[in-house]
Amino acid sequence: MKNKGIIIALSVVVAIIILGAVYTAFAINNRDISEAAKKPNPEEIQKNPTVNEVWGKYYPEHWQSYLKGKESDQKTKYGGNLRESKLEHFPYLRTLYAGLGYSEEFWEPRGHPYALEDINSVPGSRKKTGGACLTCKSPEVPALIEKYGDDFYRKPFNEMVKNVKYPIGCSDCHDPQTNDLRITRPALIKAFERQGKDITKASRQELRSLVCAQCHVTYYFKEGSKETTFPWDEGLKADQTFQYFEKRNLTEWVQPLVQTGLNKARHPDYELFVGSTHHSAGVACADCHMPYTKQGDSKISSHWWVSPLLNIEASCTKCHTQGADYLQKRVYQIQDEFKAVLDLASETNLKAVRTIEAALKTPGADQASIKRAQDHYRKAFWYFDWVSTANSMGFHNPQEATRFLAESIQYANEAIQAADQAMLKKQ
Amino acid sequence: MKNKGIIIALSVVVAIIILGAVYTAFAINNRDISEAAKKPNPEEIQKNPTVNEVWGKYYPEHWQSYLKGKESDQKTKYGGNLRESKLEHFPYLRTLYAGLGYSEEFWEPRGHPYALEDINSVPGSRKKTGGACLTCKSPEVPALIEKYGDDFYRKPFNEMVKNVKYPIGCSDCHDPQTNDLRITRPALIKAFERQGKDITKASRQELRSLVCAQCHVTYYFKEGSKETTFPWDEGLKADQTFQYFEKRNLTEWVQPLVQTGLNKARHPDYELFVGSTHHSAGVACADCHMPYTKQGDSKISSHWWVSPLLNIEASCTKCHTQGADYLQKRVYQIQDEFKAVLDLASETNLKAVRTIEAALKTPGADQASIKRAQDHYRKAFWYFDWVSTANSMGFHNPQEATRFLAESIQYANEAIQAADQAMLKKQ
Repeated sequence: MKNKGIIIALSVVVAIIILGAVYTAFAINNRDISEAAKKPNPEEIQKNPTVNEVWGKYYPEHWQSYLKGKESDQKTKYGGNLRESKLEHFPYLRTLYAGLGYSEEFWEPRGHPYALEDINSVPGSRKKTGGACLTCKSPEVPALIEKYGDDFYRKPFNEMVKNVKYPIGCSDCHDPQTNDLRITRPALIKAFERQGKDITKASRQELRSLVCAQCHVTYYFKEGSKETTFPWDEGLKADQTFQYFEKRNLTEWVQPLVQTGLNKARHPDYELFVGSTHHSAGVACADCHMPYTKQGDSKISSHWWVSPLLNIEASCTKCHTQGADYLQKRVYQIQDEFKAVLDLASETNLKAVRTIEAALKTPGADQASIKRAQDHYRKAFWYFDWVSTANSMGFHNPQEATRFLAESIQYANEAIQAADQAMLKKQ
Repeated sequence: MKNKGIIIALSVVVAIIILGAVYTAFAINNRDISEAAKKPNPEEIQKNPTVNEVWGKYYPEHWQSYLKGKESDQKTKYGGNLRESKLEHFPYLRTLYAGLGYSEEFWEPRGHPYALEDINSVPGSRKKTGGACLTCKSPEVPALIEKYGDDFYRKPFNEMVKNVKYPIGCSDCHDPQTNDLRITRPALIKAFERQGKDITKASRQELRSLVCAQCHVTYYFKEGSKETTFPWDEGLKADQTFQYFEKRNLTEWVQPLVQTGLNKARHPDYELFVGSTHHSAGVACADCHMPYTKQGDSKISSHWWVSPLLNIEASCTKCHTQGADYLQKRVYQIQDEFKAVLDLASETNLKAVRTIEAALKTPGADQASIKRAQDHYRKAFWYFDWVSTANSMGFHNPQEATRFLAESIQYANEAIQAADQAMLKKQ
């Protein structure tokens, strides 16, 4: 009986400790959100919404984490925060992108603070589209779009770039008055509208991905107006966006080796992520890329946007309790496995280019077969480029990314076979 | 102050309830294991270890769940517990398996209680290998292997089948004396030995998969002795087992349409599962396929081995708390996506067969090219058959399963191209 009494007393003490810990953890985890939601931003921010440094004065911990994005020396196995040449890592891209600026210069992306510096270093000849190239580079852009209307997109880059001083920053995603998350880029709002969806109805958790989807998506510059546009009308996926372009007969450039019009995918990170295991489970971009982190004395949602592999402890272990070593190994296993198929698909796409090129050079080659080869190759290339250009080396959606590589392999082979046919049928 | 007192008192009460619940849940979850481990089995079981019904007398709840395996009417989207014709679902298999009994008769698998009934209904012409076909059909087999040695495997099926009465059952995985999990099939023990691993060192959690891996794996009948053998010496995966056969120049049958020796994969469920997300996280086969379930008044580890889709609540929701509807939708999404690539790969493999067949029929076709086509096709077929024959429609390891389909698509296309070449180069 005495023992029983001691056990009960001990249980009560333990229970109180546990309940206290749970309450404290809950309170800490929510402080960042609740505080931000409660009081309006200082007047200085409201008057200078595009000046990131001003926000930094009032949110010093967030600002410190934002500035960490300048440390461009962190490296993961397949990425990091370095300005390395993609063409050196993947030399076959020089051939696949022939005729496009990307075949001459294609950099791994660096952090938001480098947005303006890095676009300014790109040769002017690659920014002929104009202001559109600035769409995602500065918080000053939405006001410029408001001011110039559609002209913003097609006005010369050099003219428009004079209007911007600050790289991607606070007001791109936060309301200067309330600090709430907000969508500032028309391309996303309009893409939702064309799908019959109202983005203002999005929940806060959806916004924690959608603010990223303003820019981390594939896009094209609309025929005529040059307006930055998301090809989402048929759906978000590689096959659906391919159909979007095919139905509208839209191509970005004619690839000289295969002599057919192609479109170049641009980092469809959000599109790939949608429908993945993480996304289906309700995880938002910010959950992994902006984990709650201790910064000085506070706990904040980190604004150091990098691969979660550089911050596994904060990014992954809140849900996955197996420890950072295990998690890193798992991610690399998934990425290695994706990379193996990516390599295979790149070889087949390369062979397709070479075979079509040979058919085009063969006097009297059957034109109908060449046309079939080009049609197959357009699809093969888009599917390949889609997952190859997306960040994460397949991790954002491993099964789907591998599926589109499998389909790319099939279509590239059909292109090869049709081009071979073309050479056989020659008169 | 008064309020504070009430809050503390309430907290204590809540805490006691929580602690009590945790203790109770822990106790219940472990009862099945601890009870089983504590006392030796009744003498009647020890004297009649192969008679499933005798075990059933002393483990009535487990026995009831075992008998549920006889209810062969449960259906999931891609499987279930029905004896349906695979050839009707996947007509292309008639061509791919040409020359093999599987091209004439190939059934979806039913539960363990049907093991003997179903093998007996297979025509004798398909069981020429002999006793080996019984390896996984009855708990009486280990004693027969002991008695006849390697002769067991090659003795006529009809002679050996007379020695067995009971379908797969208790002593296949449980020690009749201690009830502990145990490995009874020499094929698995020897495969471990050849890899330099000692299966007796396996942990209980490993055994909760390895008892299944005695049978739910691919195997072949060893040249000469006909001993049931796992081709794992180079590793467990599709590419490694392919190399195993290639290096040893082993083939099961010559496929008449492509005129090359092939091997037929047999449900490599364990091999595919190894390295998957679930497996890497320490999940065993039994965790999903034998969930703790209320049976009558007790909580037992279910012995109703079926797709977890037939029992999502018990199988999945202990770890995945999003509810059965969500989980079923997720699994089907993964399976649908795999099925799309499977269909694509089946078409390409079929085209490879038809193109090689045409080349073989072409007088004067280049033999070296035909040989290359056959070499490519062997790989394409093994990779395809590997994931197609495994249960779960890709779910056991979605990324890897899709990867091998992507590789199969590539090699099947290379076979097509080589066969086309063969016809061109003809004299």
